[in-house]
Amino acid sequence: MGNPKGSRTERELLYLFHSTGKFAPLRIAGSGSSPLPCPDLIVGGMNRVLAIECKSGKGRRDIDKQQIEELKEFSRIFGAEPWIATRFNNMPWYFLKLNQLGISKGKNYFIDQEIAIKKGIKFEELIGKYKQKKLYS
Amino acid sequence: MGNPKGSRTERELLYLFHSTGKFAPLRIAGSGSSPLPCPDLIVGGMNRVLAIECKSGKGRRDIDKQQIEELKEFSRIFGAEPWIATRFNNMPWYFLKLNQLGISKGKNYFIDQEIAIKKGIKFEELIGKYKQKKLYS
Repeated sequence: MGNPKGSRTERELLYLFHSTGKFAPLRIAGSGSSPLPCPDLIVGGMNRVLAIECKSGKGRRDIDKQQIEELKEFSRIFGAEPWIATRFNNMPWYFLKLNQLGISKGKNYFIDQEIAIKKGIKFEELIGKYKQKKLYS
Repeated sequence: MGNPKGSRTERELLYLFHSTGKFAPLRIAGSGSSPLPCPDLIVGGMNRVLAIECKSGKGRRDIDKQQIEELKEFSRIFGAEPWIATRFNNMPWYFLKLNQLGISKGKNYFIDQEIAIKKGIKFEELIGKYKQKKLYS
């Protein structure tokens, strides 16, 4: 993420996974600056591995196509599920699959509050505590 | 590791895994200082996940019992294989399972060149390129 606020929300998500007692989360050194592709967080547990890119902020966040491709490729080699975790101000965490992101001109991606609420799943659903029925998917 | 030399050897191992094209390695932020247990590297690929603590230097390295317990517990929750990676000066990497470490007085652990050579496996064997027959195990 490369900004203090991003690091703060990454740590928040780290502790959220840790608090379940069923997942072991890790923050990656130099994500965003490393020459090798890497997500912000990697989380293992319950026979799953989640590779997570965090996007937090007030409004719409654009995401480079290359960053999504790298997350996809990293996850394929590692054997992980790629996820985008969003945390907009005063909203809970929403988690989206890569094909649920908005697509902007120039074939880049974006995420905003509307897409997060409409398509994303909440933390409890992500970790399998309950299944939420989505009207739109 | 918390020291520049440790970071350098960690990066060396990172690129070694990356160069295989079959493993996706990650360096963990704040390993050694994070309040949550975490290894130095986590590596996924070929249907495996390796949680690796790096120990490099000139001679014998002592390892706190607590660090080993935390690596074991982290790996159990994450679903990873715990490994100690050693890199002594002018020697190749050797990888050891936790029960292959030396045990010192006070029930702490240690690793030195002799144990590394006698009990450890080399990188190619770790990643399954070939099987090396150990006379001592």
